Amino acid sequence: MSLVLAVNAGSSSLKISLFHRFADNPANPVLLLSSSISSIFAPPAKFKFSSVALRHRSLNEKVDSIHDHASAFTHFLHRLKEEASVDLMDIKHIAHRVVHGGNYTSPVIISEESYHYIKRLSDLAPLHNGSALSVIESAIRTLPHAKSIAFFDSAFHKDLPTHVATYAINQQVAQERGLKKYGFHGLSYAFILRAVAAHLNKPPDTLNIIALHIGSGASMCAIHNGQSIDTSMGLTPLSGLPGATRAGDIDASLIFHYTSRSPAGMSHDPSISKDVKVTEAEDILNFKSGWKALTGTADFKEITEKADTSPLSDPMCRTADPNTLAFRIMLDRILHFAGAYHLALHGDVDALVFAGGVGERSAELRRAVGESVGCLGFAGIDERKNSQVDDEEGVIVDIGRGDGKKRMLVCHTDEQLEMARECSLANEFWV
Amino acid sequence: MSLVLAVNAGSSSLKISLFHRFADNPANPVLLLSSSISSIFAPPAKFKFSSVALRHRSLNEKVDSIHDHASAFTHFLHRLKEEASVDLMDIKHIAHRVVHGGNYTSPVIISEESYHYIKRLSDLAPLHNGSALSVIESAIRTLPHAKSIAFFDSAFHKDLPTHVATYAINQQVAQERGLKKYGFHGLSYAFILRAVAAHLNKPPDTLNIIALHIGSGASMCAIHNGQSIDTSMGLTPLSGLPGATRAGDIDASLIFHYTSRSPAGMSHDPSISKDVKVTEAEDILNFKSGWKALTGTADFKEITEKADTSPLSDPMCRTADPNTLAFRIMLDRILHFAGAYHLALHGDVDALVFAGGVGERSAELRRAVGESVGCLGFAGIDERKNSQVDDEEGVIVDIGRGDGKKRMLVCHTDEQLEMARECSLANEFWV
Repeated sequence: MSLVLAVNAGSSSLKISLFHRFADNPANPVLLLSSSISSIFAPPAKFKFSSVALRHRSLNEKVDSIHDHASAFTHFLHRLKEEASVDLMDIKHIAHRVVHGGNYTSPVIISEESYHYIKRLSDLAPLHNGSALSVIESAIRTLPHAKSIAFFDSAFHKDLPTHVATYAINQQVAQERGLKKYGFHGLSYAFILRAVAAHLNKPPDTLNIIALHIGSGASMCAIHNGQSIDTSMGLTPLSGLPGATRAGDIDASLIFHYTSRSPAGMSHDPSISKDVKVTEAEDILNFKSGWKALTGTADFKEITEKADTSPLSDPMCRTADPNTLAFRIMLDRILHFAGAYHLALHGDVDALVFAGGVGERSAELRRAVGESVGCLGFAGIDERKNSQVDDEEGVIVDIGRGDGKKRMLVCHTDEQLEMARECSLANEFWV
Repeated sequence: MSLVLAVNAGSSSLKISLFHRFADNPANPVLLLSSSISSIFAPPAKFKFSSVALRHRSLNEKVDSIHDHASAFTHFLHRLKEEASVDLMDIKHIAHRVVHGGNYTSPVIISEESYHYIKRLSDLAPLHNGSALSVIESAIRTLPHAKSIAFFDSAFHKDLPTHVATYAINQQVAQERGLKKYGFHGLSYAFILRAVAAHLNKPPDTLNIIALHIGSGASMCAIHNGQSIDTSMGLTPLSGLPGATRAGDIDASLIFHYTSRSPAGMSHDPSISKDVKVTEAEDILNFKSGWKALTGTADFKEITEKADTSPLSDPMCRTADPNTLAFRIMLDRILHFAGAYHLALHGDVDALVFAGGVGERSAELRRAVGESVGCLGFAGIDERKNSQVDDEEGVIVDIGRGDGKKRMLVCHTDEQLEMARECSLANEFWV
């Protein structure tokens, strides 16, 4: 029996899916069970364990012994053996989602060399690579017979046009230090591309999409003939759209004024300005900003429930309500990239696709985006379909009214399935 | 006789225009002469002095005694008296272009208080406020009878919607320190708005424009019903489009990796990363980046002459030629904002307007932008008109083929005339 574990480590969460790979149908690995662990650093952690195709009970427990990603992973393996009676020796491969791949543009088997390369890159993705590495270490230790394979979120963007990927900085420094646009959320975009192609019955390499992966990390991607030609994240996941705790695009000199000692604000008089460390800057801009900094909550649903989500009611947004402001900021930045990518695709767009935790769940955000992009020829939002996305079967839900040539879709994206499929299809991993 | 001097201090240049204000026609101050001084910090400076409506000889001289903005200004005054026989006592007001106005949203007479406020703000616009302040000091000393009045480049954007001006960061810190989007090039945008309104015979407050001010500093502005609703520069002129020596938008964490001591590049291991000072960061990102860093020259004309300027020849831009790359980067970033602002204006755009040194002179850039925005309903570029912009009379040149509803215009923008007009029209300055 060939099993594949697909592991997706977030900053304080871990999602794991177990797939059965059939040699005669490697393109369709079958999901056996899924698990998620949250609040990893705020014990007791919450552990969920759901059967899909195996006969075992579902679990929803609080676990005191989980205190980091490694202990979360070993707890999962323990439950897998005990509750689902899975022989761990059947796990042939463990596919790990790694945010930043640097120069790696395709999946790589973890070795001494690749491990250390990824470790070095973790500096550029402080919210993510670190936790993936903890799980990788744990997997190598606890399942030594299985191959750990890293799948990179940056790989989907490997063919960005040079003028898009290049920053207007000294290119000698840029090349020495790898300072360019990498882009992320690539596993999700690869999944979205494939799913939309199947839904529209078009070959992926003829498809033009504006894809939105909006979750606690948020980005957008312009896909032309199946290739990423631009994306909102850059050297790191910091740039582009704001996220739950990320600032997104800001003036690059802002952080120096943010951390200044000047009581009056915007000075960098040498006597009062202070030096800024990358760790401090990244902490503020990745963990202490975003819509949580604006509203006090990282829960976008809570924000939309309190906000005035109609952009038409107050176009200049003079509101004093932080929820309305946070919602409008997200909407404004999303529309900024939607307009830019619509032009980058020469107006020839098959669909705008919402995905990610917020993209799949926030009918309000989709409605507001839909109201604004109608002028570009996108279908208006069908409010009934839009509000019933959760109840619909299938990976893709069409929420458009059918009055525009360009579709409005929601995609239930699945990074674990994408990894499992890529892993299952890659012959070199199965020889 | 009521004369107004309009002074525009750049980082190493000074442009001065002398206007005659007539009380019965204050909206149309008459240009008497203009002067420009360049290479101020690379002596000998080049001094030009051109008569428009006065009888005096034109000068084009190299001046050893000019070594800063103050000495450039006093040299100008000396020539004004000697060569043009202007009685300096007739100069009633001196209008100074100041880049960053902070909370000032309209012109302000220089006093002890306003001077120090502007001085403090000079931190946020390291390329510009400093030189303006030197000229202001010199003007107060040498022409004590005249009022010095500061006109702010940020003032045009004072009514930006709150969700556009707000960064997704802690708002208590933001408000204490004034960390928000201000936007710049406002004198130019005010001039463009007025000129396009006159050309199209529409009231300015009904006009929707995408305005490009592309010079060694470059920005764009979305103008809706005569108001700025978005612009590409932010807290400082650093963000948005790249410029001759400015990086434009980058990942906010890039600078920490740029200055890292790590030989291998992208690490911020505490043992090898170093603290970054705002002065160092601003120096690199404002003075050592942009198209000069990419190509070796700050002269955009030289770049376009060497570059392949047809975007259609190589859409993925795999070029090794730095000129082609630099041209494509500028084009890519301009189109990014053009698409975004087209959507911000709901597709209802009267004209896309090129201005600034590069915008007014580079037929190649206009052609490339024109090829790409056609899909949004903009008129195609008339190549004969586009190549003859310099020979055309008038402030506005229409370069469109007339096949689209949305015009393609070039505007010979004039920040000094804008200041002189605003100064001349403001009754409170003339009581």
